[in-house]
Amino acid sequence: MGPHPAVAAIRLAVRRVLHDLLTEHSTERHRDRGSAPGSAQTSPEPPRTAPHTPPQPPLVLVACSGGADSMALASALAFEAPRLGIRAGGVTVDHGLQPGSDTRAAEVVLRLRELGLDPVESAAVTVGRDGGPEAAARDARYAALDAAAERLGATAILLGHTRDDQAETVLLGLARGSGTRSLSGMAAVSGAGGRYRRPFLELDRQTARKACMVQSLPVWDDPHNSDPAYTRSRLRHEGLPALEKCLGKGVVEALARTAQLSRDDADALDAWAGQAEATVRDAAGLLECAKLYALPPAVRRRILRRAAIEAGAPAGSLFARHIEEVDRLITGWRGQKAINLPGKVVAQRQGGRLVIRQG
Amino acid sequence: MGPHPAVAAIRLAVRRVLHDLLTEHSTERHRDRGSAPGSAQTSPEPPRTAPHTPPQPPLVLVACSGGADSMALASALAFEAPRLGIRAGGVTVDHGLQPGSDTRAAEVVLRLRELGLDPVESAAVTVGRDGGPEAAARDARYAALDAAAERLGATAILLGHTRDDQAETVLLGLARGSGTRSLSGMAAVSGAGGRYRRPFLELDRQTARKACMVQSLPVWDDPHNSDPAYTRSRLRHEGLPALEKCLGKGVVEALARTAQLSRDDADALDAWAGQAEATVRDAAGLLECAKLYALPPAVRRRILRRAAIEAGAPAGSLFARHIEEVDRLITGWRGQKAINLPGKVVAQRQGGRLVIRQG
Repeated sequence: MGPHPAVAAIRLAVRRVLHDLLTEHSTERHRDRGSAPGSAQTSPEPPRTAPHTPPQPPLVLVACSGGADSMALASALAFEAPRLGIRAGGVTVDHGLQPGSDTRAAEVVLRLRELGLDPVESAAVTVGRDGGPEAAARDARYAALDAAAERLGATAILLGHTRDDQAETVLLGLARGSGTRSLSGMAAVSGAGGRYRRPFLELDRQTARKACMVQSLPVWDDPHNSDPAYTRSRLRHEGLPALEKCLGKGVVEALARTAQLSRDDADALDAWAGQAEATVRDAAGLLECAKLYALPPAVRRRILRRAAIEAGAPAGSLFARHIEEVDRLITGWRGQKAINLPGKVVAQRQGGRLVIRQG
Repeated sequence: MGPHPAVAAIRLAVRRVLHDLLTEHSTERHRDRGSAPGSAQTSPEPPRTAPHTPPQPPLVLVACSGGADSMALASALAFEAPRLGIRAGGVTVDHGLQPGSDTRAAEVVLRLRELGLDPVESAAVTVGRDGGPEAAARDARYAALDAAAERLGATAILLGHTRDDQAETVLLGLARGSGTRSLSGMAAVSGAGGRYRRPFLELDRQTARKACMVQSLPVWDDPHNSDPAYTRSRLRHEGLPALEKCLGKGVVEALARTAQLSRDDADALDAWAGQAEATVRDAAGLLECAKLYALPPAVRRRILRRAAIEAGAPAGSLFARHIEEVDRLITGWRGQKAINLPGKVVAQRQGGRLVIRQG
């Protein structure tokens, strides 16, 4: 008799990601050992790999809060990794936001070790205030995870975000109203060198919970997840259920699919804007208004946004309405004054050229 | 003393659209009268316009249900049109879905005449069942409006959709999960030759209601608008308020902005797919898998969708998951069988070519 369907589902999801990592890993090692084309026959040097150090099996970490999603992920990693010759470890981040969070982190470390993970670490961080409580906690968490990956020489860190988290992220992006990129949610692969992987992005939260239950894994419910002070928590407990009541049970799946489609669309348009940008600059590197005008609005506005960011405008403070105003220098020119953008960047039209610079 | 701010707002919105229509109208007449480049000096024929028929001032209709949004629109059209030398008329559609709907329609006709609109017509329609009650009513309504425009020789029909309607439409599109185009809501200009115009698309419903109130215009609340049997009504009365509670009051505006940005993105990507399609077909017109593979996924999937529709798949039944399955013939080829699509269309890979046709 095979495992419970929920356990089978979480293991399959992790197996797929580990398989991807192994393929990439072997390709990379192959590439590292090979020589550059054309240099193979002429180089007299031996390969640089020391012949007596056997290649170390790759290490994959799970980032685990002790909650159901990441505990399910840890259990699946502990099961699958040894079968693929991969070392499995874990990190838990102590955000220090609640009394006793250090004890909690120590408990999570024990549970991960009980699953057979090794190494397992707890990383204490200090959460700042930049960008609000959720963003500050996230920044601190990823910094700690990055540091752990570097310290332990990990190939990848698995994150337990589910399809439900993805749906919430899309709604949060929708509330910003800043377009396709902000609807694209979390990527399955992200971070420096594709370090972060999200095996559960197409799996629902219920499956992860069920997998913990049938494996008798104790899980911890982070009180933040049900604290209505947090936007995401309000969305989870009020917003999404209300939408499901109106629109039917498929809403979470539809939002997750929207994320994927939006990501692909945003990537394609960014690529187009990147290529088009070179064609709309004059010899001095200034943007030519007539050439910008001829581009589709979606491409033109992306070029304007890139130019503003290059000039020093902070991406997070640059909203769609800013770019629309700059765009009107191209599409609705009637002698407007210079436009002030965040980061003391100024956009103005001068003799058929658009000049965007820190003023 | 000027008019109440709400009345000023609805009038400004209508004035802008009428101004656009006049500009287009005069450009068209100018174009009709002129000759093709190069033919001017050689053509001996006189202009075709009969010299004794003075040009008729353009007629603009308002589509009016008697509800606050379209009554506000009718009042603004009645005020602005004469000042711009435009004739203003109205049409109300009797959907025949409730007892007494004919009396209701007759009342709306009287109210529009009282505003000074002329001609004013009531059009009775029979609502079918295709695509659900809301879609069937919409189809019948637009057919009747198209017919009225033709019969009366109207240049345009104004529709009273507000920013709130737009936000609801975006959420309905989100629930379909079919990507950027389905998030683009309603266009400010749509229909054959740009016949339909939506002057209130950036105006909130509250402003339209207020404008009716301060002008003492009696309005009718369509019971369908609060009938929880209708998805849109549930969204309006439960879904959107719940989202606003979670995400803040700016949600409606953010959704409307998302519509505009998504429309521009979808237009640009459709244009790209249209151009790219020609480059990925072989001499026999078949799609070459290797060339499709090299395109960004967002562009490739649009080409696949177009090809399926050209082969006879009904656009409304063709979902993202269908296209994803066809896409795997390109990106994940492992000898799959032919894929069945709606409308008895079959997609299969044969010798490096993708063949999509009715089977």
